[in-house]
Amino acid sequence: MAIHAIAFDAYGTLFDVYSVTELAEKLFPGYGKQLAQLWRRKQIEYTQLRTMCCMYKPFWEVTQDALIFTCRYLGLNLDLDAQNALMGQYARLSAFPENKDVLQVLRDKAYKLAILSNGTPQMLQAVTEHAGMQGLFQHLLSVDAVKVYKTAPEAYQLGPDMFGVPAKNMLFVSSNAWDVCCATWFGYTTFWVNRDHVPLEELGVMPHGTGRTLSDVLHFLETSQ
Amino acid sequence: MAIHAIAFDAYGTLFDVYSVTELAEKLFPGYGKQLAQLWRRKQIEYTQLRTMCCMYKPFWEVTQDALIFTCRYLGLNLDLDAQNALMGQYARLSAFPENKDVLQVLRDKAYKLAILSNGTPQMLQAVTEHAGMQGLFQHLLSVDAVKVYKTAPEAYQLGPDMFGVPAKNMLFVSSNAWDVCCATWFGYTTFWVNRDHVPLEELGVMPHGTGRTLSDVLHFLETSQ
Repeated sequence: MAIHAIAFDAYGTLFDVYSVTELAEKLFPGYGKQLAQLWRRKQIEYTQLRTMCCMYKPFWEVTQDALIFTCRYLGLNLDLDAQNALMGQYARLSAFPENKDVLQVLRDKAYKLAILSNGTPQMLQAVTEHAGMQGLFQHLLSVDAVKVYKTAPEAYQLGPDMFGVPAKNMLFVSSNAWDVCCATWFGYTTFWVNRDHVPLEELGVMPHGTGRTLSDVLHFLETSQ
Repeated sequence: MAIHAIAFDAYGTLFDVYSVTELAEKLFPGYGKQLAQLWRRKQIEYTQLRTMCCMYKPFWEVTQDALIFTCRYLGLNLDLDAQNALMGQYARLSAFPENKDVLQVLRDKAYKLAILSNGTPQMLQAVTEHAGMQGLFQHLLSVDAVKVYKTAPEAYQLGPDMFGVPAKNMLFVSSNAWDVCCATWFGYTTFWVNRDHVPLEELGVMPHGTGRTLSDVLHFLETSQ
């Protein structure tokens, strides 16, 4: 399988969505982990509901909606200062430690790299700059261009359209099992970074490769070409 | 608002999806509640992913997939006997206690009643018969007819198509906040049976009425006509 370009999911894959936990715990002692987890879950759920119902709204706003719901559900008083602090943290999520080096190696090997994310262009710009990754990607592809979220085919289609190659000649990398399964359905060659050591979703579809960190993508590319 | 017909969601609204908890606890002591909750969550998630990706598969199979994932995730050994027992329980979920009387009153008031559900025709037949409700509904509308799950518009469209009235002249009743919000977006007059006393989803849309049990639908209809 000749891979010409690699598209990375951003949230959960390159950037740690749970790096908000520390601040959440500081703001709401005893609730940090629960807040971070439910926030993430509702964020994804809202993107899916909005996609199915053709009610697109940018990811920044959906992320804020999910935060508001989460705090209400947990009985936490989210004032504007806390909301701004947590949303600000979301714009500066930590990158997983191995990522920058892996991306640099892939660049050195002449792979074309992109992010393909639910995030808005502004969010992707901010989070890659904060991680010092802005020079590593040819493209920051945001579903905002098509106004539907992953896992809709129109969202995945952004990759092949931008690079002018069939999806099977691109590697799509995600830590989100749902994302990697649906990208496989779409037609990408796929790699699942199973950071949380969880079982694969029972969707009747398997990613082409699986590993524990982004570094494992290098081995996959060496052995599968 | 003249309401000519009423469509009820089935799972969670008429039938208690957590009535599998007791059996789950018996089969996997200490895990009953967790199993029932994750099973339900994955079941819904799989319907959404399959809908967005145009990968429809009947609800019975999706429900089984979700059960298999759940047990794998929780580290529980689901043998075929346990699987069949839990799936069998799903075909015979308990109805919430007030439902039958409320449905009978609505029939007596000459409302046309239907179920509009993700469940397959076979599942809806089985669960209504088990609850002794088979005579109360004019139609058991299954999304299997259109091969996409709620909350896709094609699924909600089954109601107006069957009764020949606009969605706004039908009442759609659901205990699932996501379902009732998306049905409101679609155009139904909607009623949320908030059985779990949870906050409404932060989707920027409100059901037309809210109550705590199905009985509250009666009051809503009396005061809103």
